[in-house]
Amino acid sequence: MRFHSQLLKNGLQIIGETSPSARSVALGFFVRTGARDEEAGVSGVTHFLEHMVFKGTLRRTALDVNRDFDKIGAHYNAFTSEENTVFYAAVLPEYLPQAVDILADILRPSLRVEDFDMEKNVIIEEIGMYEDQPTWSAYDHAKRAYFAGHPLGNSILGTPESIRGLTRDQMHGYFTRRYVAPNITVVAAGAFPWPQLVSLIKKHCAAWERGAIGRDHLREAAGAGGLRLLNKEKVVQEHVILMSSGPPAHSPLRYAADTLALAVGDDTGSRLYWDLVDPGLADAADCSFHEYEGTGAFYTSYSCEPAKAQKNLDIVLEVLHKVQLEGITQLELKQAKSKIQSRLVRGSERPMGRMQAIGMSWTYLHKYRTVDEELKAFDRVSLTTIRSLLERYSLDKATIFALGPLDKLRKPARKGRPARQSKSRV
Amino acid sequence: MRFHSQLLKNGLQIIGETSPSARSVALGFFVRTGARDEEAGVSGVTHFLEHMVFKGTLRRTALDVNRDFDKIGAHYNAFTSEENTVFYAAVLPEYLPQAVDILADILRPSLRVEDFDMEKNVIIEEIGMYEDQPTWSAYDHAKRAYFAGHPLGNSILGTPESIRGLTRDQMHGYFTRRYVAPNITVVAAGAFPWPQLVSLIKKHCAAWERGAIGRDHLREAAGAGGLRLLNKEKVVQEHVILMSSGPPAHSPLRYAADTLALAVGDDTGSRLYWDLVDPGLADAADCSFHEYEGTGAFYTSYSCEPAKAQKNLDIVLEVLHKVQLEGITQLELKQAKSKIQSRLVRGSERPMGRMQAIGMSWTYLHKYRTVDEELKAFDRVSLTTIRSLLERYSLDKATIFALGPLDKLRKPARKGRPARQSKSRV
Repeated sequence: MRFHSQLLKNGLQIIGETSPSARSVALGFFVRTGARDEEAGVSGVTHFLEHMVFKGTLRRTALDVNRDFDKIGAHYNAFTSEENTVFYAAVLPEYLPQAVDILADILRPSLRVEDFDMEKNVIIEEIGMYEDQPTWSAYDHAKRAYFAGHPLGNSILGTPESIRGLTRDQMHGYFTRRYVAPNITVVAAGAFPWPQLVSLIKKHCAAWERGAIGRDHLREAAGAGGLRLLNKEKVVQEHVILMSSGPPAHSPLRYAADTLALAVGDDTGSRLYWDLVDPGLADAADCSFHEYEGTGAFYTSYSCEPAKAQKNLDIVLEVLHKVQLEGITQLELKQAKSKIQSRLVRGSERPMGRMQAIGMSWTYLHKYRTVDEELKAFDRVSLTTIRSLLERYSLDKATIFALGPLDKLRKPARKGRPARQSKSRV
Repeated sequence: MRFHSQLLKNGLQIIGETSPSARSVALGFFVRTGARDEEAGVSGVTHFLEHMVFKGTLRRTALDVNRDFDKIGAHYNAFTSEENTVFYAAVLPEYLPQAVDILADILRPSLRVEDFDMEKNVIIEEIGMYEDQPTWSAYDHAKRAYFAGHPLGNSILGTPESIRGLTRDQMHGYFTRRYVAPNITVVAAGAFPWPQLVSLIKKHCAAWERGAIGRDHLREAAGAGGLRLLNKEKVVQEHVILMSSGPPAHSPLRYAADTLALAVGDDTGSRLYWDLVDPGLADAADCSFHEYEGTGAFYTSYSCEPAKAQKNLDIVLEVLHKVQLEGITQLELKQAKSKIQSRLVRGSERPMGRMQAIGMSWTYLHKYRTVDEELKAFDRVSLTTIRSLLERYSLDKATIFALGPLDKLRKPARKGRPARQSKSRV
């Protein structure tokens, strides 16, 4: 493995990890823009724009984009998150020139009005589809409730109303501001000659516009607190999410946060697994750590029969409270680290996995990290690190959100603590 | 990459591909037994037994199995098909001894009566869950209709009735016959020392029973023909599957069959994609080739609004008929090969992918095939090979099965062909 990087004159960053044993190459364009960067009135524009990128350019119709990717047997896709829009393809090394050609071309989309109007319906249908998925819907609402006004609470998809209200010119304005060269990192991993990549990117992207880049509201978010309930008769199970604050992406505590979340709520062998899933109290329970620029959050969630939701809430809060007071055990720490390291190594064995990892690391830290450096960082997590993390971020200081058939759910008063204190905690 | 193999005295086969650049090791136990090997009266026993394998041994409870895998951060699972039951785990190289210990141990399960009775409910629930998935359910029914009495038509899950009727002793009898050493291949790929693997397998598996192995009904199946309709009011879309005969796993024509299926029905850029999905006539359309011991089959399927099902059936039959008469184009061939080779290479970049590939190749061909050999085999597919395939196996001679709200669907008479001929074709 060898790392390379080059900054073009227009501010476009190229990074790459060449691997002599790889047999394919994965290529990604990381645009540092997401739902958090949307101003009022354009909710959902980032995700909608991601769709429009595949709808054609000066040189290609939407059909051409599809056909050209197909011709080279590319595995390609894109995703939009709170902070990033990423377009990627994996191909055999001989097709790198075509892959760069297509990806670079579509990143300068025509945004034709007729395509824009047609695609609106697709987006609105997609919103409807996600709204029918209680897990996603609960996540979207919980995030909004927790971040309460912080732009990380912005919905990625937007609403049917916000999408209907969007104009092509608003999207074009957003594109012009956010898809500037200095806001994009081109990332490659696998089997490719670095000089070839640089020359291809220069050929296709050197003329891309410069521009000011930035992101507002980088403060840490503590969470709104409280308990909110969204009554949905049609949903069968009750879906409950507890959010609490965690370290930001640049914090060294992120490794401890990942480890802790796994010990508390991995889908097998974790505290929540043994307390909720194994005894059949909940269908699913999970704790995961999400890192963002400037802040982070733990998402602890479960879904179950509505009749069990209240009892399960008591159990989950007790689990979080106990971990907050006592931390985890040496055995739990060891097991969580084994799992993380095993996943990290397996995820790194494909160019696609490495491309995503080095792209994210560069986006957040402006740093290249080898797999070994990442493994060592997890190795260094100790019970003391976990303790420091919990002292700085209270796992049990949760904002609670529930979606499902229930019309009543209460936050239990903690046993053995005065009600006043308990109340003041959230 | 280097290949190794060793046959133990009791008939257990060990094979392995060591890769200097891998950072994990994938280990699988391939038991050559599946739904096709079930006698009347024990339908579903293979899959049920796969579950019971995780329920404990003389040395481990079900909890211990779970905990021991978790301790080493293993990614582990199992699956049952018509012909194989495979148990596998991927771990960091230092945990290979524990991974062998656990997998070898659980392959000699206790099959305790109380666990057996408890697990019955899980299986029956799983059957209900799959029955609610129209895609799976249609596949299961179509297979039964097409194979009409051939054991490849056996249901993998069985029915609630067949599972309720199973006794622990029937399962034990099946286990004793099918899980004998000569019917099992241990497969490893990735980062591991071959001598260490052999010595670990010898330690844990050398005492496994020998036994006669075999499989009945290895004749090629031509398909029953006809059109069957299963009316399910509750299902929203109509799910239609057309099955036609293809080459068996050992045939060199399998490469042409995979290529042809991709050109006809890949999920993007294929004939069915352009004729059904792109114009919005169907939500999904697919053609794939399944190979078995002794026979093979093409599965062409689509799902759509019930009102469009008849028109779409006409279109699909025309697509298959046209391909049968004219083959595919040079461009389609090139594109399909690009896609297959790209998927093959990307799938081979992880030990888990290689383990599955070399395990299956050994199971069916008793041969080791490198990635390059596989790539070359696809390279050799030409329009002439496709023609030979179609001459031997008629793609448009289909057995049709539909599941959904429709209560009427007819096989269209082919335009420009006498009705008698058209009828005689199925």
